[in-house]
Amino acid sequence: MCRQRKGTPVTRGFNFSAGPAALPEVVLRQAQAELLEWGHARASVMEISHRGREFMELAEASERDLRSLLGVPANYRVLFLQGGATQHFAQIPMNFARQEGVADYVVTGAWGEKAVREGSPYTHVRLAASSLESNYTRIPPRAQWDLDPGAAYVHYTPNETIHGVEFQDIPDTGGVPLFADMSSDILSRPLDVSRFGLIYAGAQKNIGASGLVVMIVRDDLLERCPKGIAKILNYAEHAAQGSLLNTPNTFGWYLAALVFRWILAEGGLAAIGERNRTKAARLYAAIDGSAGFYANHVERSARSWMNVPFFLPRPELETAFLAESREAGLLALKGHKAVGGLRASLYNAMPLAGVDALVDFMGDFARRHG
Amino acid sequence: MCRQRKGTPVTRGFNFSAGPAALPEVVLRQAQAELLEWGHARASVMEISHRGREFMELAEASERDLRSLLGVPANYRVLFLQGGATQHFAQIPMNFARQEGVADYVVTGAWGEKAVREGSPYTHVRLAASSLESNYTRIPPRAQWDLDPGAAYVHYTPNETIHGVEFQDIPDTGGVPLFADMSSDILSRPLDVSRFGLIYAGAQKNIGASGLVVMIVRDDLLERCPKGIAKILNYAEHAAQGSLLNTPNTFGWYLAALVFRWILAEGGLAAIGERNRTKAARLYAAIDGSAGFYANHVERSARSWMNVPFFLPRPELETAFLAESREAGLLALKGHKAVGGLRASLYNAMPLAGVDALVDFMGDFARRHG
Repeated sequence: MCRQRKGTPVTRGFNFSAGPAALPEVVLRQAQAELLEWGHARASVMEISHRGREFMELAEASERDLRSLLGVPANYRVLFLQGGATQHFAQIPMNFARQEGVADYVVTGAWGEKAVREGSPYTHVRLAASSLESNYTRIPPRAQWDLDPGAAYVHYTPNETIHGVEFQDIPDTGGVPLFADMSSDILSRPLDVSRFGLIYAGAQKNIGASGLVVMIVRDDLLERCPKGIAKILNYAEHAAQGSLLNTPNTFGWYLAALVFRWILAEGGLAAIGERNRTKAARLYAAIDGSAGFYANHVERSARSWMNVPFFLPRPELETAFLAESREAGLLALKGHKAVGGLRASLYNAMPLAGVDALVDFMGDFARRHG
Repeated sequence: MCRQRKGTPVTRGFNFSAGPAALPEVVLRQAQAELLEWGHARASVMEISHRGREFMELAEASERDLRSLLGVPANYRVLFLQGGATQHFAQIPMNFARQEGVADYVVTGAWGEKAVREGSPYTHVRLAASSLESNYTRIPPRAQWDLDPGAAYVHYTPNETIHGVEFQDIPDTGGVPLFADMSSDILSRPLDVSRFGLIYAGAQKNIGASGLVVMIVRDDLLERCPKGIAKILNYAEHAAQGSLLNTPNTFGWYLAALVFRWILAEGGLAAIGERNRTKAARLYAAIDGSAGFYANHVERSARSWMNVPFFLPRPELETAFLAESREAGLLALKGHKAVGGLRASLYNAMPLAGVDALVDFMGDFARRHG
């Protein structure tokens, strides 16, 4: 970032967007270099059949790499889908709960709320726990969750992108399968996939570009997918066809494959997780050490490594912060309108240097305006 | 294509893929040039918020250009969606027919069959007409269609990509709205949008890359979309949010915007249509003039301008044709497995020079093997 290459001034900033988010620059450069001719295809990767040998090899390699990164057990299937996580808020109960059944939802922010809203037409959604009363600044203690042992699954959002609230461990739901919308923290650190029934994630934060959803699902659960819905909405059908039931988002899949390889080259999730821990620690230290000039309202044990909302003492200072930070090459720091203030997203593609640049800028800004 | 640029040998072939299909080379070159930094974003177009000013301007410009190309009347809405046409086979009856209602389907090939299959869980699908008995080599005469005047809509596939069968005019369905899956012939010639209730198309043929669906729908029909389904599956909700109900496929949308501008620069649909007419005419003339060496089995009045299936006298000749044509830089000529033989797709991005190269090759091949 902010480097020169072949004499052309490169003006890419450090991009703190919550999503669609920054991609690793090396991935973008590879995609750029081969955009017109990919491998031996004599065409762009986006101009070839998804059923041809070349694309099938890419699809297989991407799944192999993702399995390797996450240690996905053999009894889990990996799907590459479309529609964003939001579509799957509806499609998951359609597939795994029954209209007359029950599914438990734990809500710790705006995305959990959406999962409830979109899932409600397709099963009886029970609100098993919520931290709304805290304005989503904490995680309801596991002991207070009101779980139904007969529920089809327990759904939660391990990291809430807007509220900056993240589970630091995996909740135990006994015999009820745990379903997780990991859109904003998948691949951010090592994960014990075997603790989950289903994991899904929109790609536009830690996987690649928008328009792709990755799902990891325990294969016995696919037996629940009902015959009475369209095949294209049925996950078991997608699994049976290797995610080629219809034309997938081939370019999005290709980018995901490049990102998986990049993570492997960076040392895998152990290394990425350590880097993410350091990045978050440095930013929270800057906030906490600002004598109240900057504030993050999330309970410390629930602070997100990926999305850090923070506030300044007065709205006009936030306006100035946004303008000056952009000028300094620190992009997309505006907070979500539901929360206000500022927000720095520190996904995998954000280098430590970007966080350091932000922390330096924050110190300087506080000295000038504090 | 097949040209040299800046001393680097360019080995892009003429790509006859049925989809994902060839993109205009000038579009790919622009996407390549700005892949790391788009406009003043200091980031890739795929790394920025879909709700920011820069992407919103792109979204608005793309809709304006598409409306201009097709002369979309003011009482139609344009949506940019995900899921491929196949998902909308299910979602369309979910939105516009009632479970206890009826929708008429006219089936002239494999995609119409899929629309029937995927739509059937959501309404009573009536087969109003089919040309299955001809192996989908013709279009059932309008007078023989068994339409229900109480149907929610009449659905058909103006161009069948696999079977190479295309309507040359728009059927009159009286007061029942006409719905068209135009995945493989949208933007291939001028169109009277006002004759339709709804048009939709997967992008991966004439619009851009896979993972995007464009829909044009008469606004009064959106009042039918039921409250009882998830918002993310409800077209009226997408329309109310300007297709930003959730994160769209931003890179796919961007490519579509570039393609729309390219078509405008090429002279719009009148010019594109004339070129497509010429391309198809040259290829069919080569087939018909081959003294039976090449054969296309579609009734002449129903021959597609976009997808031309053809056969050689013996399977081993088809194998040789495929290998030699690829060697000659003529790519992806294998027919769909449902039909066999060969198929040349002549979407907008295929230049006349590509068709001429194919015709020359066919003549040469016939002389050597005939």
